[in-house]
Amino acid sequence: MQTPPENAQHNPWSKSSTHNASVDEYPTEDLEGAEAFELLGDGSLHASAHLSKRPAYGEGSSIDWLWEEGSERLQQRNLHLQRGWRGMVAPILNFAKIWTVLVLTGVGIGTIGAWLDVLVRWLGDLREGRCTYGLFYNQVTCCSGLDAGEVCTEWQSWSQYFHVSFILGQSLLQSSIYIALAVAFAGSAALFVRTYAPYAFHTGIPEIKAILSGYVFDAFLSPWTLLIKAVGLALAVASGLSLGKEGPLVHVSCCAAYLLLRLFRFRHSEVQKRKFLAAAASAGVSVAFGSPLGGVLFALEELDITSFSNESEVMWRGFVTSVIAAVTLQYIDPFGTSKLVLFQVTGVADTWKAFELVPWLILAALGGVLGSLLIRLNAAAAVFRRNSFIHEWPVLEVVAFSAITAAISYLVVFLRVQSSDLVSNLFLECDPSKGDYHGLCNPTAAWENMFLLVITAGIKLLLTAWTFGMQIPAGIFLPTIAIGACLGRAIGLFTELLQRSYPTAWVFSACPPDPTVRCVSPGFYAVIGASAMLGGVTRMTVSLVVIVFELTGALSHVLPIMISVMVSKWVGDGLGKEGIYTVWIAMRQYPWLPPDEFRDNGQTAEQVVKPVHNLVIIRDEEEPTMKELTGFLDKHSFHGYPVVRGERLLGYVNRDELVAYLGSLVAEDGQRKCTFSKDVAAVDNTFLNLSSLLDEAVLQMRKEVPLQLVVNMFQKMNLRHVLFSQGGKLTGLVTKSDIVWLLTTHFPHTAALSERR
Amino acid sequence: MQTPPENAQHNPWSKSSTHNASVDEYPTEDLEGAEAFELLGDGSLHASAHLSKRPAYGEGSSIDWLWEEGSERLQQRNLHLQRGWRGMVAPILNFAKIWTVLVLTGVGIGTIGAWLDVLVRWLGDLREGRCTYGLFYNQVTCCSGLDAGEVCTEWQSWSQYFHVSFILGQSLLQSSIYIALAVAFAGSAALFVRTYAPYAFHTGIPEIKAILSGYVFDAFLSPWTLLIKAVGLALAVASGLSLGKEGPLVHVSCCAAYLLLRLFRFRHSEVQKRKFLAAAASAGVSVAFGSPLGGVLFALEELDITSFSNESEVMWRGFVTSVIAAVTLQYIDPFGTSKLVLFQVTGVADTWKAFELVPWLILAALGGVLGSLLIRLNAAAAVFRRNSFIHEWPVLEVVAFSAITAAISYLVVFLRVQSSDLVSNLFLECDPSKGDYHGLCNPTAAWENMFLLVITAGIKLLLTAWTFGMQIPAGIFLPTIAIGACLGRAIGLFTELLQRSYPTAWVFSACPPDPTVRCVSPGFYAVIGASAMLGGVTRMTVSLVVIVFELTGALSHVLPIMISVMVSKWVGDGLGKEGIYTVWIAMRQYPWLPPDEFRDNGQTAEQVVKPVHNLVIIRDEEEPTMKELTGFLDKHSFHGYPVVRGERLLGYVNRDELVAYLGSLVAEDGQRKCTFSKDVAAVDNTFLNLSSLLDEAVLQMRKEVPLQLVVNMFQKMNLRHVLFSQGGKLTGLVTKSDIVWLLTTHFPHTAALSERR
Repeated sequence: MQTPPENAQHNPWSKSSTHNASVDEYPTEDLEGAEAFELLGDGSLHASAHLSKRPAYGEGSSIDWLWEEGSERLQQRNLHLQRGWRGMVAPILNFAKIWTVLVLTGVGIGTIGAWLDVLVRWLGDLREGRCTYGLFYNQVTCCSGLDAGEVCTEWQSWSQYFHVSFILGQSLLQSSIYIALAVAFAGSAALFVRTYAPYAFHTGIPEIKAILSGYVFDAFLSPWTLLIKAVGLALAVASGLSLGKEGPLVHVSCCAAYLLLRLFRFRHSEVQKRKFLAAAASAGVSVAFGSPLGGVLFALEELDITSFSNESEVMWRGFVTSVIAAVTLQYIDPFGTSKLVLFQVTGVADTWKAFELVPWLILAALGGVLGSLLIRLNAAAAVFRRNSFIHEWPVLEVVAFSAITAAISYLVVFLRVQSSDLVSNLFLECDPSKGDYHGLCNPTAAWENMFLLVITAGIKLLLTAWTFGMQIPAGIFLPTIAIGACLGRAIGLFTELLQRSYPTAWVFSACPPDPTVRCVSPGFYAVIGASAMLGGVTRMTVSLVVIVFELTGALSHVLPIMISVMVSKWVGDGLGKEGIYTVWIAMRQYPWLPPDEFRDNGQTAEQVVKPVHNLVIIRDEEEPTMKELTGFLDKHSFHGYPVVRGERLLGYVNRDELVAYLGSLVAEDGQRKCTFSKDVAAVDNTFLNLSSLLDEAVLQMRKEVPLQLVVNMFQKMNLRHVLFSQGGKLTGLVTKSDIVWLLTTHFPHTAALSERR
Repeated sequence: MQTPPENAQHNPWSKSSTHNASVDEYPTEDLEGAEAFELLGDGSLHASAHLSKRPAYGEGSSIDWLWEEGSERLQQRNLHLQRGWRGMVAPILNFAKIWTVLVLTGVGIGTIGAWLDVLVRWLGDLREGRCTYGLFYNQVTCCSGLDAGEVCTEWQSWSQYFHVSFILGQSLLQSSIYIALAVAFAGSAALFVRTYAPYAFHTGIPEIKAILSGYVFDAFLSPWTLLIKAVGLALAVASGLSLGKEGPLVHVSCCAAYLLLRLFRFRHSEVQKRKFLAAAASAGVSVAFGSPLGGVLFALEELDITSFSNESEVMWRGFVTSVIAAVTLQYIDPFGTSKLVLFQVTGVADTWKAFELVPWLILAALGGVLGSLLIRLNAAAAVFRRNSFIHEWPVLEVVAFSAITAAISYLVVFLRVQSSDLVSNLFLECDPSKGDYHGLCNPTAAWENMFLLVITAGIKLLLTAWTFGMQIPAGIFLPTIAIGACLGRAIGLFTELLQRSYPTAWVFSACPPDPTVRCVSPGFYAVIGASAMLGGVTRMTVSLVVIVFELTGALSHVLPIMISVMVSKWVGDGLGKEGIYTVWIAMRQYPWLPPDEFRDNGQTAEQVVKPVHNLVIIRDEEEPTMKELTGFLDKHSFHGYPVVRGERLLGYVNRDELVAYLGSLVAEDGQRKCTFSKDVAAVDNTFLNLSSLLDEAVLQMRKEVPLQLVVNMFQKMNLRHVLFSQGGKLTGLVTKSDIVWLLTTHFPHTAALSERR
């Protein structure tokens, strides 16, 4: 049992100055307040004391869920309480506004997704050649409209375009343009991120998880971030680096939703905002994988939206937004397939045989092991980058690494194409009528293919471990799928080879006796491998299975997919309980509580409570002047402070609120004495009455409470702190950061990337 | 703001004697304790004080979630802590046991579902005729193996079988056998329920919801209930009463899971049990609708499994069990269609037109209104039944009402078949190649059909309102779908008629100009109508949409389904916020907290706190003897009592535990004094030390806490009671029943069917 460090009360998320200077800060408090009052109207009489003042949140703080949810309910009620026709119309208008934003979010995300697909496809093809009748056509569009059998002459490789005829020159030109463009794409993406939107790098899912659980980080959702992340993502994917667009698309969706919220003036509620963000995140997953149900389940399982007090409403909004986004994508239909299913699995044998469980279980275990390995390598790479000179040269790092990636990729045939093409080809069953992808279906080359696939998987794993964490938008889903698909296909080929070599062996007795009839479907093994690998990396369960079967349409084979995800998660959990997002959250030390069960081994809250003699406390009986109080606040930059008067605990005051309140007044009359006690203020009105700022700490616990109960309360009630008292006397304090520390301190590299280092 | 009645501390769920005398009671406490100790093994040293003793739960009480979850974690840890190879093997064995039970549950539920389908089909067909070569074949099996166009002579109607040739005789014979068998089926179902398993009636979902939230009601899950509910359900459905098998199947699933749990000796944890029940309930929905994802979402949305501290594990178990159950059903394939989709929608126009939104919105609003009407009629019928002489004659009521239903059904052609057949025919588009269902596709009879459909819907609504609540197993899903489908089809026919009559009107300009091409798909209108009606009755959202599209396979049209569910829910909520299950829970007054947001209008806990002078308290300073204490317990049969010593609050003691503890000791030495104070017991060991029974009430609140926070804590933390104190002095008490009362008191007919009346 570690005890939190002495300075755990200190706000570990106070951002550096660059962060606070961000141009697109939350609007000023005054404006907010005015709007809120206008909305409250004549119903404001009903506002109880604890709802009187909107708390001030600095970037990096956590919201006060109880206050926010209370205020939202109050606003709702006041809408209904207005007199006359306004009482009828206002709720309907508010309602219409909410749903307009949701529908627009869905349509917007679907459009962005489609647009990104087109952009990526074009940029990717540009590395190999161009369309003769227009630079802005990709290969498929350029060659469309041809009859069957006709050769496409409109699309020319760069060597054709520059009329280079000798073989060596062709190879050199092609490879150098390929590498040069890859470097240019990746470099410009990194430069954009570095210059305009420092938060647009990486996947974004860890931050979204933290934000949804109450973290305040508005700069992460700014319009600039939206633009740069979307453009940078297209460039990064097209550069051929080992990354995917799925995770970042969730971030882009949330930025888009936040922009809409601001356009529609939904600024007054932090909880409301988070409900919209949850819906947008579902829609992001829905568009990324063509999987509306997967999106909803992702929000439920991975983003843990159950912390909202009305989760079925949140779930419903997420569902509607996801479906609208998916329908929009299908309607725009960027590739003219009019299908949502990205990697259609076809030609799979209708039934699977019992002996196939053996290779599948091996694959599943392998997925768990390699998933854990990827997580560890990735975390180690991130920590190494942070502590070495590379940290100072992020753009150079991206340029150099994209050059390396491009050079390696050009050599290994399966890596040369985009990962999504690789995956869809690996998922395809061999069909003589349809042509052969790089000789993958050539039965005489089975051993060579297996070797090549394993090499590809290995290289991809190493590349991904470094790439995920560089200063460019990067998702980990697609590379993981690609690694798993390579391994799965390899094992599938091996099984097929075995079965064809020994068709009469008793294990294969379930196969049809005719050796020309296919019994083993290596393409489906690739699906199993991909699921297993994803299970090992993300540790998702239900949402992962749903995403995989919506991604592939392999509904009939959901049972083996389920088994592989389950086994790979077990194996992975044996090697370290945390999925990759959890590890990143812990490394960046966001105030996010893992929703898992906590076992307290019989300890009590005593273990985490910071005893009263270690706390910085405001002593009301000393009757500080405003100036003294401001000095005190400057000296101790904690989240907040317990307030006591003599022995008696008065409550807890939030630093941001106190600073905001005193800010304007201290210049006028700095020598005026302050008090937090209502009794004192009532008797003597020379005191400045601060009691309205006081959170009266109505929820107090005794130190004998089991630790698990404390953790559970923080997890489920979204608390920021709990005061411990006995007989009215303050005995200690536990803040959310103490609990976060308690739950994450055993992770490898916890706080290694935290900004406060 | 109502205040709870004076006797709200009283246990309102203490069952009548018949209940306690139930044969299949939970095994005795002693056995339980022994098993628990054996399991704990050498790890029991680690057990903290608050885990020392298993609480005793009487039927009708609520479990102590905190204790149960703590004990489960302790057991888990102790499994790992065992020495040597046992420490390796025990967790794996435990794990294997859990998953064996889950897999068996899934397979079992799939099998039961398939078996019920076959039984219902056969019994239903028996009402019209029999197979010449064997009584135990249904019509389809009897006539299978015929060539196309061949007439089935093996299946004979009763008049053919008895060689009645004249028309009047035929009609009389057919109708009287039809009615007689219907009455016989329904009557025997009621008799079974009445005689062997009084809890096997009704749908069971309200009780499952209450049990999952912590209510103790083991008799409801007994093997007898399983058998009687399954057989009775088949008889009831076959009798042609207006009821469905979906809800009861969820109950049957839970009974089956409970049986397996007992066979595998999983008796020691109430939370563990509830996790299995949640998985079984998902699987029940999965089998009932052929909708594995719908099952999981149903558990999430309707059964509110988020109250478990590890909900993603619960969700995953539910998902696996659902899929296994669905796969089993598909494998057994009772009807030889090898499809999970029950009501396949085919031939729907690929795209829908904007003008169709108008009829769909009308349908959706109608669904909301009629859904609310059905809820109200049903509740009124239940209350009327309870307060009239009918309550004394449940079997007679069923017999009489099934005769009425059969007579009416025989007259109205659409009601004569089983509801599921009606629905699947209403969902089908007209296809000239496939024959016509009772002239539904005859364009010249459109007005007649509309009239007949509306009449059918009306009759069905009235029949259902009475049927749902009689002493037979009965679900409300299918009748609701049937009502909605009738209305939808009627409006679809009307729209089609309109479009065909005015093909050139501007509203219909989206339709192809050729009038022979179908533009409006009335079958899909029936789907919309069914969704809307279900939305109005159950007030489900995501799970309902998923169930409908898994039920019909109409994935392409999910957007209109979604809109109709949404609108019908809004309209319904305007007429009363509660779905039918919530109303029944409130009427039976189960201790179940609606998970909805609660708005406190600025009140504080003061509103619900029972002040200390109204409480029955054990005063430790009076040093009662065991005999006095037993007398006290006999006199005040509350759930539990706060214990104070002088001014100081010691804690809370549960009545059942105290009774169980004192039970054996009081006979030996009734005059021995007791104390709950550790200090006293330590000094003077003539006292019987009861401090281990004390819940030390570590969580105390002040009365100034906002009411919403108290409600929220009860909802999310699964508390049974909260003590209020100020400065160490007891100021009051709030129990779960106070909060349930607060949240449900405004419902119509709250507690109207409660057993304590």
